[in-house]
Amino acid sequence: MMQKIAIIGLGLIGSSIAHAARRGALAKQVVGFDASADVRGRAAKLGFCDVIADDIADCVKDAELVILCAPVGAYPSIAPLIAPHLAQGAILSDVGSVKGAVIRDIGPHVPPGVHFIPAHPIAGTEYSGPEAGFSSLFDGRWAILTPVPGSDEAAVKKLRAFWQGLGSQVDVMDAAHHDLVLAITSHLPHLIAYNIVGTAHDLEQVTEGEVIKYSAGGFRDFTRIAASDPTMWRDVFLNNREAVLEVLGRFNEDLSQLTRAIRNNDGQMLFDFFTRTRAIRRAIIDVGQDSAAPNFGRNKS
Amino acid sequence: MMQKIAIIGLGLIGSSIAHAARRGALAKQVVGFDASADVRGRAAKLGFCDVIADDIADCVKDAELVILCAPVGAYPSIAPLIAPHLAQGAILSDVGSVKGAVIRDIGPHVPPGVHFIPAHPIAGTEYSGPEAGFSSLFDGRWAILTPVPGSDEAAVKKLRAFWQGLGSQVDVMDAAHHDLVLAITSHLPHLIAYNIVGTAHDLEQVTEGEVIKYSAGGFRDFTRIAASDPTMWRDVFLNNREAVLEVLGRFNEDLSQLTRAIRNNDGQMLFDFFTRTRAIRRAIIDVGQDSAAPNFGRNKS
Repeated sequence: MMQKIAIIGLGLIGSSIAHAARRGALAKQVVGFDASADVRGRAAKLGFCDVIADDIADCVKDAELVILCAPVGAYPSIAPLIAPHLAQGAILSDVGSVKGAVIRDIGPHVPPGVHFIPAHPIAGTEYSGPEAGFSSLFDGRWAILTPVPGSDEAAVKKLRAFWQGLGSQVDVMDAAHHDLVLAITSHLPHLIAYNIVGTAHDLEQVTEGEVIKYSAGGFRDFTRIAASDPTMWRDVFLNNREAVLEVLGRFNEDLSQLTRAIRNNDGQMLFDFFTRTRAIRRAIIDVGQDSAAPNFGRNKS
Repeated sequence: MMQKIAIIGLGLIGSSIAHAARRGALAKQVVGFDASADVRGRAAKLGFCDVIADDIADCVKDAELVILCAPVGAYPSIAPLIAPHLAQGAILSDVGSVKGAVIRDIGPHVPPGVHFIPAHPIAGTEYSGPEAGFSSLFDGRWAILTPVPGSDEAAVKKLRAFWQGLGSQVDVMDAAHHDLVLAITSHLPHLIAYNIVGTAHDLEQVTEGEVIKYSAGGFRDFTRIAASDPTMWRDVFLNNREAVLEVLGRFNEDLSQLTRAIRNNDGQMLFDFFTRTRAIRRAIIDVGQDSAAPNFGRNKS
């Protein structure tokens, strides 16, 4: 059990870490801070932190572990504010969806004697804000640590144990590989979902009412991730540009091939393509990363 | 209550109609047929039909309502087999995801005195086959009827009442508009989902194991509809080519615009785009077409 952990940013992920840390008895004291006074007030009322600090320096002071849970675009302004107040031997980590940019933005500010270990839990919902958090968010999901070369082994081990205590499985990889893996498993899916919802919204010949009424034909699935936090996702795309553009190029090549098959009435190509994708769904269910229930087990109404 | 209804094709939709018709006591006798002897055997064992016919002519004989529930690509070969055996005054309908092609393929075979009223329930799951059906599949979902000009009003009214009896809400529109609405709400989402799963599968730098493990970042949502029946979806794309290519063109234009915003670091454009898509999700939940529970309320593991 740690003496004190500090959470900077009290949205879905920050609040869920606080809930899960309490459930797992991982720290004597969880102190939270958010740049928004309104969010601090709501978080105080919700009570998932032991203390809500009104000052970011007070929040991180004496903490064994400091976790940035703000949108990654805010990191460059947060880093210089907290750096002078970090305790010797503290672990500085984060939960950002990109890791190369985080190392670029935070790294230069990290004082000697502080262990900087970026991290990213692959978990979330389409809801945002301190009310959206819950203690089981990380259960069975993966958290990826991307320590920089030369990181302290004991500190990495301690952070790994912390995430396991929150309910996660933990992997370690380098930041560049993380950013490519997440570009295909998370960033491209979000971009495509936002895009198709936009296309449906703008189509003149089909009304928005029709899109909404008949959404159970498939469209509604995309609207869930397209309802994710716009600030967070803006920052993801601005900070993982190269990897996103790379997988987007591949996506476009594949889509051109499917388009050509439709145009040319190539039923065999379509059938073969649609057949091999089933195995991936099955594997995701087998490893416990999704529900086998039809329609995700969603409510009937 | 009808005397006899005939269901041709005993997969997810055909079997669900049988289950729901029994639940609603909509017919004295539900007779089923499937081109596959194996499926007929499994359906007989499951017992959702009163009779499983081994002969398609016996299945439709004397039926007040005949519903084609086979992949739409099979309609051209089914139509001439059943046409001579349809009863005078019978309604011939279907559940195909495209309607223009169905009118083209079935229309010329319909004998005088038979009421041909194409239909399409906007409901389904990612599972296929007679075991996948259940009685509540259509509850609260929409069924769209696309009667051809000059259709008998009383027959349309009777088919509407039947679908309401299955649990659906019912709309009527012309076939061409249906095909465009479904192209954006169902066909394009499926094509995009199949495509992104294929792209992830083929990416050399990221292993399939990584795609599967870290799929909770968004990718797993797409794998559900990409696990849908390959035969059905091949036939949809071959039979709604023009509308699919039209909405695909719009999708590509929008994606180019988003791509340019990422390349140019245009954070404001991305933020604005990602903000307006939230309202559509909210509206879909408000009209009861999806669950408000985080992550569709899917199981945690």
